[in-house]
Amino acid sequence: MTENELLKDGERIDDLQCNGFRIIQNPAHFCFGMDAVLLANFTSGKKSGRGMDLGTGTGIIPLLMLAKSKAASFTAIEIQEHMADMAARSAELNGISDRLKVVTGDICDIFAKDKTEGSVDIPRESCEIVTSNPPYIVDNGGLQNPKDSINIARHEIMVKLEDIVRAASFLLKVGGYFSMVHKPFRMAEAFAIMKKYSLEPKRLQLVQPREGSEPSVFLVEAVKGGKSGLKILPALNVYNADGSYTEDLLNVYRGQYGKF
Amino acid sequence: MTENELLKDGERIDDLQCNGFRIIQNPAHFCFGMDAVLLANFTSGKKSGRGMDLGTGTGIIPLLMLAKSKAASFTAIEIQEHMADMAARSAELNGISDRLKVVTGDICDIFAKDKTEGSVDIPRESCEIVTSNPPYIVDNGGLQNPKDSINIARHEIMVKLEDIVRAASFLLKVGGYFSMVHKPFRMAEAFAIMKKYSLEPKRLQLVQPREGSEPSVFLVEAVKGGKSGLKILPALNVYNADGSYTEDLLNVYRGQYGKF
Repeated sequence: MTENELLKDGERIDDLQCNGFRIIQNPAHFCFGMDAVLLANFTSGKKSGRGMDLGTGTGIIPLLMLAKSKAASFTAIEIQEHMADMAARSAELNGISDRLKVVTGDICDIFAKDKTEGSVDIPRESCEIVTSNPPYIVDNGGLQNPKDSINIARHEIMVKLEDIVRAASFLLKVGGYFSMVHKPFRMAEAFAIMKKYSLEPKRLQLVQPREGSEPSVFLVEAVKGGKSGLKILPALNVYNADGSYTEDLLNVYRGQYGKF
Repeated sequence: MTENELLKDGERIDDLQCNGFRIIQNPAHFCFGMDAVLLANFTSGKKSGRGMDLGTGTGIIPLLMLAKSKAASFTAIEIQEHMADMAARSAELNGISDRLKVVTGDICDIFAKDKTEGSVDIPRESCEIVTSNPPYIVDNGGLQNPKDSINIARHEIMVKLEDIVRAASFLLKVGGYFSMVHKPFRMAEAFAIMKKYSLEPKRLQLVQPREGSEPSVFLVEAVKGGKSGLKILPALNVYNADGSYTEDLLNVYRGQYGKF
């Protein structure tokens, strides 16, 4: 299939600046943001293992993870069919359909006891790495279009934080890594839920717009069955005082994914 | 009683630089550190309410809290009799024995079901504020002198984190504030324990030696029965690049307790 045949109306191909990897996106729906790139960079789990990305959207996180390592394979689950379809075509575009399998489905079906027809069948304790850049916002009240793609990606309409953590714990081998990006507002809640499902927070990094400001997101990595004990890394500043990107932020892009 | 009559061998009187308040300390045992001053400054609970300090040592936290507010009263509990005695004499030295009551006792007796003779009898849900600068270190293995004053203050020999959080929850009214300082290593654990005892972490501040370094301690304030949702404040840097104290750190001392 030619590149043009892989594209649907309104879609475009963007270069990920990392080993020639590219991604299909549709600006009318949802394009990946900095948080996903930060998370892919932050994740320290074995690069050679089997991974799972929960709520993958365009597939940005597994694409970046796979661009870093030729050995790893990922499964990516996404409830929105048109997004999952786009992620699958990005896998095809990069010639890695054998290493990136995209599943259209509901994260809650991963750990459902009574699997029904059409549910997601992924074995328990089959992964070394689970990643997620989940919807951040608890409340979906007042949304004009709750079924809108962007709202589903940003609000807890189809999946809640606890569902994601529970699915991650179900999927991970003991000693496997779960990494997630989320809003500071929900950090205490996230830690408590992780511990409830035997995912011990081990590494934390706050990301803040600039030095001396409140953090905008946090990155956390938990280990299934890990011993209690958290390492907090120095905060990552996104902007310098003059509004330019910091070297630290540019290095996230440069070091792992080529030039920004 | 004269000032000299209030002092025992090896003790000295230090000026707290706040409304003329002073404290009795014995350098051979344990002198208060910066963490206690940071915690007293960080605590935002009602200044007019009844407070309790768990594991008060020399009484530094309630002394600073009372120096800030003429209305508040505190009870302070300390298991080491010679430390509790020193704290009580500091209350006398400052003429506030009516506002600062020092109890020699075990924090675990606060919530014990079967109170025995000599146990601590403080009513459930009687406090607006509970503070604690607890021992930080989990392991007491390998200590040459586990009964040494400094070791008891620094290691979890006599009391564990969960005991302190449980006692705080027992003592606080619904809506009351629990503030604590601890090591980043134990932050996830602390949050989970707080939530277990209905103390919801609401405000967090990391304290780091200098900009861009890993945090050395965290300050957290939880609300009993509070709704989930954490605010993370900008980190506090202790030192400038040239090794001098930052304005932020000096303001903690200046603003609340006079000049450093």
